[in-house]
Amino acid sequence: MDRASPIPFALSRLDRADARRRDPEFLGAHLRADETRTLALWRGRALVEADGKALRWLPPADVEPHRGLADTTIFLGLDGAAARFAISLGGDAPPDFPGASFVEARAAAMTLDLEDTGALAQARSLVEWHRNHPRCARCGAATEVCDAGYKRVCPGCAAEHFPRTDPVVIMLVHRGERCLLGRQPRFPEGLFTCLAGFVEPGETIEDAVRREVAEEAGVRVGAVRYLTSQPWPFPSQLMIGCLAQAESEAITVDGNELAEARWIARADARAVLEGAGDGTLWFPPPVAIARRLIAAWVDGET
Amino acid sequence: MDRASPIPFALSRLDRADARRRDPEFLGAHLRADETRTLALWRGRALVEADGKALRWLPPADVEPHRGLADTTIFLGLDGAAARFAISLGGDAPPDFPGASFVEARAAAMTLDLEDTGALAQARSLVEWHRNHPRCARCGAATEVCDAGYKRVCPGCAAEHFPRTDPVVIMLVHRGERCLLGRQPRFPEGLFTCLAGFVEPGETIEDAVRREVAEEAGVRVGAVRYLTSQPWPFPSQLMIGCLAQAESEAITVDGNELAEARWIARADARAVLEGAGDGTLWFPPPVAIARRLIAAWVDGET
Repeated sequence: MDRASPIPFALSRLDRADARRRDPEFLGAHLRADETRTLALWRGRALVEADGKALRWLPPADVEPHRGLADTTIFLGLDGAAARFAISLGGDAPPDFPGASFVEARAAAMTLDLEDTGALAQARSLVEWHRNHPRCARCGAATEVCDAGYKRVCPGCAAEHFPRTDPVVIMLVHRGERCLLGRQPRFPEGLFTCLAGFVEPGETIEDAVRREVAEEAGVRVGAVRYLTSQPWPFPSQLMIGCLAQAESEAITVDGNELAEARWIARADARAVLEGAGDGTLWFPPPVAIARRLIAAWVDGET
Repeated sequence: MDRASPIPFALSRLDRADARRRDPEFLGAHLRADETRTLALWRGRALVEADGKALRWLPPADVEPHRGLADTTIFLGLDGAAARFAISLGGDAPPDFPGASFVEARAAAMTLDLEDTGALAQARSLVEWHRNHPRCARCGAATEVCDAGYKRVCPGCAAEHFPRTDPVVIMLVHRGERCLLGRQPRFPEGLFTCLAGFVEPGETIEDAVRREVAEEAGVRVGAVRYLTSQPWPFPSQLMIGCLAQAESEAITVDGNELAEARWIARADARAVLEGAGDGTLWFPPPVAIARRLIAAWVDGET
């Protein structure tokens, strides 16, 4: 696998222009500038053009009527010299924008131009963080947005709160000509994917891989190799994709995280990836890093 | 460099025994069992034996008089069959434990047996998270500890809150025979280290490396290679160590994150690592992953 091959949510054409977040003059001048464009989200769904290929980037005139519904305006960065913002719209029904609609972000990522998916990941992670963290976790007071959406500050106790990104390990466990995949209880029969789990406080990436595989499937892992990463804005995860060498084979599923786990032969995995499986086994779509990890191993990476 | 060589905070002999966190019968039976041991922290400092080589693991009888001062009791895991807990003690002065003292965790990690440093990282990250997140970030109500310290639940709005781990990229930027190191404004003259910064929402590890190096030093980075990771419990970071190939050389420091940045010749870096420098340049101590990354590059990793 070409590790640099673009994966949804991992590619953006925006320069985050971090210093501009603390530049009220710049932000004031650009929020309503002609060339400024804004991505609207409603309940975590993104406004997408009818053909599904591009985000609908709204000009200031189209945003203005909805500002009263907006929780927060976030500066995403610069596309060339033009500013890009994200806005989260409230309301019980999605506001109407002719020729575009609010689409669930995973579904959107399957059809969007890849360069739009990074901005979507950035916007969705930040918007959801603000939605779910309006209060100070230290004293309970209502907090205020600062730095164009990258900080909340408590007027009561002065605590500063920053957007959260949760590291998650996701791993293709392999041993010789077989790899270990699991089915989560909420998955349909036959859908198998890589094992995954949150990195815990005080834990390395490599130990998180070993712990999760032991917990979920009862399999012992030795060497772990990092392969690639993907932002996953549901709500705000950093997927850390690894290949992991198993040192044991007997499977004991925990029944909680996984309904079943199975060793799958390389030839069978290749057939599924090529659409030539027997229909009893399938993998997540290419939007998921899991499929990339399976493909990397099928192609000989270890 | 041997990538598997132990680094402080990255090694633990505890089995986290995740399922036991939700097993009140187990927890109740073990909290005061004879073989149970508890690590006490006070203001983020850990109780360490006078010789600095081991954590003081308190038997139940030594913990009992202090339970009234404790915010939270956290289940760390199992050492063999024996349970290990962590407890955060309040009070204006450190409680007295003869033959041991409360030591700042970075200092402690420099002398502790490496197998004790992982438990310290785990305990400190969790304890500090509880100290700083007693309230619900959604509705402001006081939350309650669940799952032996791995969750807080809001009795008001039922929101669940999980301990936070912030991914940070730290990178040795190199180009030919030179590497790029920076001095932070709070550092003394001559102390240089790797560039680093938080991974932002909606960002890959590789893009975070490129963005941070561009922001802090104005240098363009191409290929990025992950090398190793380290938990850094100040308060709860996951340091993701990378090697990064520079594609430009001119330095422009931002003056905010860095006071200065400098290209350093491999021979000079090697001399510093070997204690044979001229005294005008030095690096962080071996407790820091930065020193490992510098050493890896000096030894030929790219």
